[in-house]
Amino acid sequence: MVKRGEALYRGKAKTIYRTDDEKTFIIEFHDDLTAFDGKKKSSLEGKGYYNAKISATLFKLLESHGIPTHFKGMLSETEMIVDAVKIIPIEVIVRNIATGSITRRYPIEEGRRLVPPVVVLDYKSDEYGDPMINEDIAVAMGLAKMEELELMRRLALEINQILVKFLDERGLALPDFKLEFGRSKDDGKIILADEISPDTCRFWDRETGESLDKDVFRFDKGDLESVYREIARRIEL
Amino acid sequence: MVKRGEALYRGKAKTIYRTDDEKTFIIEFHDDLTAFDGKKKSSLEGKGYYNAKISATLFKLLESHGIPTHFKGMLSETEMIVDAVKIIPIEVIVRNIATGSITRRYPIEEGRRLVPPVVVLDYKSDEYGDPMINEDIAVAMGLAKMEELELMRRLALEINQILVKFLDERGLALPDFKLEFGRSKDDGKIILADEISPDTCRFWDRETGESLDKDVFRFDKGDLESVYREIARRIEL
Repeated sequence: MVKRGEALYRGKAKTIYRTDDEKTFIIEFHDDLTAFDGKKKSSLEGKGYYNAKISATLFKLLESHGIPTHFKGMLSETEMIVDAVKIIPIEVIVRNIATGSITRRYPIEEGRRLVPPVVVLDYKSDEYGDPMINEDIAVAMGLAKMEELELMRRLALEINQILVKFLDERGLALPDFKLEFGRSKDDGKIILADEISPDTCRFWDRETGESLDKDVFRFDKGDLESVYREIARRIEL
Repeated sequence: MVKRGEALYRGKAKTIYRTDDEKTFIIEFHDDLTAFDGKKKSSLEGKGYYNAKISATLFKLLESHGIPTHFKGMLSETEMIVDAVKIIPIEVIVRNIATGSITRRYPIEEGRRLVPPVVVLDYKSDEYGDPMINEDIAVAMGLAKMEELELMRRLALEINQILVKFLDERGLALPDFKLEFGRSKDDGKIILADEISPDTCRFWDRETGESLDKDVFRFDKGDLESVYREIARRIEL
């Protein structure tokens, strides 16, 4: 069993720890929530547990389809054992249905299906306000090589297909989601990292269109705990 | 000789006219200048003449290297005869040296050489403030097909190589420039349109680094007429 070492990164939603094995990290999922660049804050008992559980299930699903992820197992209900990676500071956003920022920035109407899906890259930076980038800018900034960015795009689209099918069978639509990739500290390969949860995905009930994700917190749409519980329940079906 | 018909588009810097031949337009270059989304305005006698002349020379140069452009000839010193096109509302920006907005939006220092060059796409829209897009968003908005966008990128990079070499021989650096493409009203093919001038390119004297472009107007850097005259002079060498 790996032993938790010093914290490498402490965020609101997660803390990442080194372990006694340099190729392994532990991610602890917290109950705290933030939105709108940290301007809105709250805490929800059980959120860390649900997000760890949902992420673990989805990482295992993706691994079973040949997607390389950092997931190795659970240390406890809220602690995930993962491959040690250096995170590439790019948010890879995949959109299947137009909602949120894309409908405000461009003349694309809310609810429109995006076929083929739209992939957008944002530079993860509080200082610069997570601005949109593209592959050329990422290369110019030294964030990744062009081949790595092409791989990340290809993986993101494959992940999208796998998730959409899996979720559809559970009565859920996946309007959009955000991925982060990292370079393995073992062999430098690019693998899927971070989490896949109602904090990083939009999930809509396929029948009612109801939000079952962090938008319920962002826009006070209803009972938050039941949202995380419902996603965890459907995903374990 | 073609005859000028009704105006299709009237802007500050140019007016585009239909002609008695439906496959031909006329572009008249004006002496008016605007910057900062039209907030700064002025007029400079001779600017229309210089921009028409510089654009014509550069379009001919590009044509001689196999780049399809809308240029057909001059009707007068300020009137260009061009292929009738429907403009694709995308600004294709090519950057060789970091300056201007890219240095404000991202941690990329002023004056850094961008190798390979950075290509950025903006959606041409006053209403939306010319936001940055990418190929996926352009396809989702129905602005162009993916193959057309790939062609536009390839052409933009070829144009960049041709212009950089030509200008270098004339003591000029080309930090960045903006292109617009259109679909020919004749055969639907994508061809280079708009203009290539100190209004749409940054030109720097290679020795002194001095601006020889619209930045002189934007930031009141000196005598504007001498800038347009100097670029016209060097390009005709």
